Amino acid sequence: MALSMYQASVPAFLPMLSSLSAILDKAEVYAAERKIDPAVLLGWRLAPDMFALARQVQIATDHAKGCCARLAGVQVPKYPDDETTFADLRARIARTSDFIRGFEPSDIDGSEGRDIAITAGPRELRFKGQQYLVNFVLPNFYFHATTAYDILRRCGLPIGKRDFLGAT
Amino acid sequence: MALSMYQASVPAFLPMLSSLSAILDKAEVYAAERKIDPAVLLGWRLAPDMFALARQVQIATDHAKGCCARLAGVQVPKYPDDETTFADLRARIARTSDFIRGFEPSDIDGSEGRDIAITAGPRELRFKGQQYLVNFVLPNFYFHATTAYDILRRCGLPIGKRDFLGAT
Repeated sequence: MALSMYQASVPAFLPMLSSLSAILDKAEVYAAERKIDPAVLLGWRLAPDMFALARQVQIATDHAKGCCARLAGVQVPKYPDDETTFADLRARIARTSDFIRGFEPSDIDGSEGRDIAITAGPRELRFKGQQYLVNFVLPNFYFHATTAYDILRRCGLPIGKRDFLGAT
Repeated sequence: MALSMYQASVPAFLPMLSSLSAILDKAEVYAAERKIDPAVLLGWRLAPDMFALARQVQIATDHAKGCCARLAGVQVPKYPDDETTFADLRARIARTSDFIRGFEPSDIDGSEGRDIAITAGPRELRFKGQQYLVNFVLPNFYFHATTAYDILRRCGLPIGKRDFLGAT
C-alpha cells in the first residue's frame, strides 16, 4: 500500500458518491412522507446566488469523472445535465461510479506532473496533475457533496455525519 | 514531484485554512457594516442539530492538526476551544497553520500503513494512515470548511467559490 494519484482519487470518490446516493434516497422518502414536491427539495438553495441541490450533485459527479479522465488522459464523458428527479440523480451518480471503477491504478498513477487545462466559466485554469487533484478537485468535490448535504439538513432531512461519511 | 502522504495533506490544509481565515475576516467586516452582533454569525447553524459556525471552524482545524500529528506519530496539540470572536478563530487557524508548517515531508511520508486510533464520541475508530487521510480526514476537513462557508452564505455574506478555493 502506498499513496498514489489513483489511491488519493478513486477510493476517495467512490464511497462519497455512494453516501450521496443513499442521502438522496432518504430525501426522496422524506419528501414522499411529508408530501413535499420532490422538485422543491431538488431546487432548494442555501442562498439565492448558490446552486440548487440538483446542480450541486451534478457538479460533484463532474469533478469525479473529470478528474479520473483527465489524469488518465482520456476524453471526459459529457452528461446532458437533464436530471429532474431523485432517481435521475442517483442514476447519474451510478453512471459516474461505473465510469470511475473502470480505471486501473496504472491508468492514473504517475499523473502528478501531467498538464491539465480546464475552463471554468470565462477562465482557463492550468494545473499539474498533483495540484489539480489536491487543490482543485478534492476541495470542489467535497464542497458540492457537503453543500448537497447541508441543503437537505437545512430542509429538515434527519441525517447525520455518518450518512455523509458512509461506512467509515 | 510525487504524491505522498505529506503532499496530500499539508499542501491541502494550508491554502484552505488561509481561505477560511480570509472568509472570517470578510464576515467580521460584514457584521460591523450591517450592525450584526458578531456572536449571531458565530452562533449561526444551518439546522438546530448542526454545529454553529465557530464550532465548524474549530473542528476543521482539529482535523488538520490531528492528521499531521497522528501521521507523524507526535502528540496532537490540545486547544481549549474557547474562541468567542472572529479574531479568536483567526488566531486558532493561524496557530494550526503554524503547527502544520512545522512538519517536514520526511515526518509524514511513509505513514500509509501507520495504525491510527481516534475516539469520536462513544466510538473508537481504527484506521491505517492512508485510509485515515483519504476517507476520514479530508472529507471531514472539507465538510467543516464548506459548512462554515455555507453558513455565512446563508447569512448573506457576499463571497463566492473563489473565496473558498483561494488563489487556485
